[in-house]
Amino acid sequence: MDPTTRIEQALAAALESVTTSACPPRLAEAVRHAVFPGGARVRPRLCLAVAAACGSRDVEAADAAGASIELLHCASLVHDDLPCFDDSPLRRGLPSVHRAYGEPLAVLAGDALIVLAFENLARVLGNSPERLAPLLMTVSRAVGMPSGIVAGQAWECEPKVSVADYHRAKTGALFAAATAAGAQVAGADADAWRVVGDKIGEAYQVADDLRDVAASAQEVGKPVGRDAVLNRPSAAGELGVDGAVALLRGLVKGAIDAIPPCPGSAQLAEVLMSESRHIMPKGLADRA
Amino acid sequence: MDPTTRIEQALAAALESVTTSACPPRLAEAVRHAVFPGGARVRPRLCLAVAAACGSRDVEAADAAGASIELLHCASLVHDDLPCFDDSPLRRGLPSVHRAYGEPLAVLAGDALIVLAFENLARVLGNSPERLAPLLMTVSRAVGMPSGIVAGQAWECEPKVSVADYHRAKTGALFAAATAAGAQVAGADADAWRVVGDKIGEAYQVADDLRDVAASAQEVGKPVGRDAVLNRPSAAGELGVDGAVALLRGLVKGAIDAIPPCPGSAQLAEVLMSESRHIMPKGLADRA
Repeated sequence: MDPTTRIEQALAAALESVTTSACPPRLAEAVRHAVFPGGARVRPRLCLAVAAACGSRDVEAADAAGASIELLHCASLVHDDLPCFDDSPLRRGLPSVHRAYGEPLAVLAGDALIVLAFENLARVLGNSPERLAPLLMTVSRAVGMPSGIVAGQAWECEPKVSVADYHRAKTGALFAAATAAGAQVAGADADAWRVVGDKIGEAYQVADDLRDVAASAQEVGKPVGRDAVLNRPSAAGELGVDGAVALLRGLVKGAIDAIPPCPGSAQLAEVLMSESRHIMPKGLADRA
Repeated sequence: MDPTTRIEQALAAALESVTTSACPPRLAEAVRHAVFPGGARVRPRLCLAVAAACGSRDVEAADAAGASIELLHCASLVHDDLPCFDDSPLRRGLPSVHRAYGEPLAVLAGDALIVLAFENLARVLGNSPERLAPLLMTVSRAVGMPSGIVAGQAWECEPKVSVADYHRAKTGALFAAATAAGAQVAGADADAWRVVGDKIGEAYQVADDLRDVAASAQEVGKPVGRDAVLNRPSAAGELGVDGAVALLRGLVKGAIDAIPPCPGSAQLAEVLMSESRHIMPKGLADRA
């Protein structure tokens, strides 16, 4: 089965396990709205690609890890879109969760997705508990304090911010978790793989900055030009479009160079090259 | 060491493990504000009391389970106090987190506490992974969908609500998890103990309703009379104060009758009687 189908099925299975008839119906709808239809599913695809490159045969564990990481990403989008943060009316081309279901259900849907991410790992990996604790640590550190995506978002509330710390936490942490979790599923060394994820996360952040200045809102599915309005640090703002494209190329090359020796390293390098073109705004991909 | 000290130490250890120098300082402050000084710590005390009654010798695991349940309770208070829900200016006699640190950090502090609750279980129980998965399932089901405290809060967003479902999820679920987790730590049957927690949760909800009508804001540490203002279902509103007190007595008796056979059943019954007096508004405790 191809990775995209596996990821969508794992996400659907996670949601089905909890959105039973006992669940408040509008909460269940809000949660589904937050997860489906998805974006590029970049993080779980990366997790599955690393697990495959490391020779993992446990498809179910890799899918669960990828799905949990994506659920946490979706939760962060729902909360980041709230009026007290970006107040974004759109996400993935549709109304954001708080616009569609109201602010209370957006807060609760985000909370429920965070919980579901952990429950999903416990549910699927209950039969191999020795792998559960390390995976949980990887995932929770990528999301919580001191340096996960929640902490990354919290840097926006500080008077003094290191831009590198901000991006590493807000974006990089979940990418590093995707590669580390993929490796852990296969019994490989998580820390060596974390470096790959870090660099891809940085590249993705640069691509996101580029999309914000160089893509249309229709293409991105959310408002563009927000970094300048909100005075957020942006590689495209600092380096210009060509400088940011060059930076992105260097980061992807660095990620590929950092791939630890593994059975599927060559194929993974190809996947990363192809993904790096995917995340660029249309019209810039050729320049990279 | 007495249970109160154990709980405070376990909570402090959980927070210290993540609020390092790498953490955004105001997020760390907001999270500490949400957890310390605490309320009555009713849920972790219940968890520890059940673990002890079941003969558990693993103090560390019981403390971690109790602390994680309390962290999730604290998270729910922070989010329930947000302007889009109760908009409460006070909590435990101090400014609520969003009043003290702003709404963005209140959303993020709640998120970070949810993540920390799971990370804390993984961190402490990493050496006994076979107990980790069942504990995680107990805790996540008590918080998430379909019937955990997040779902309970979401019933407030539905046009049609069963009051029993609402209370069972919003309040009862975390009490049931406290007794179930205490039993699981000791290797006892979680489901049998869940019934005890259910009844204590119901009793606690009635006590909360009573405090809302019969206590002072100073005594409770948050605004009172909110159930009537927000048109929330309330046992005290429906049955009157004396009727609610009688209901509470019956529920505590039911909880005590439901205690499964265990080494410390008599002592646990005493603890539950004493706790039930604790949670009553001053002046009503004698009537119960």
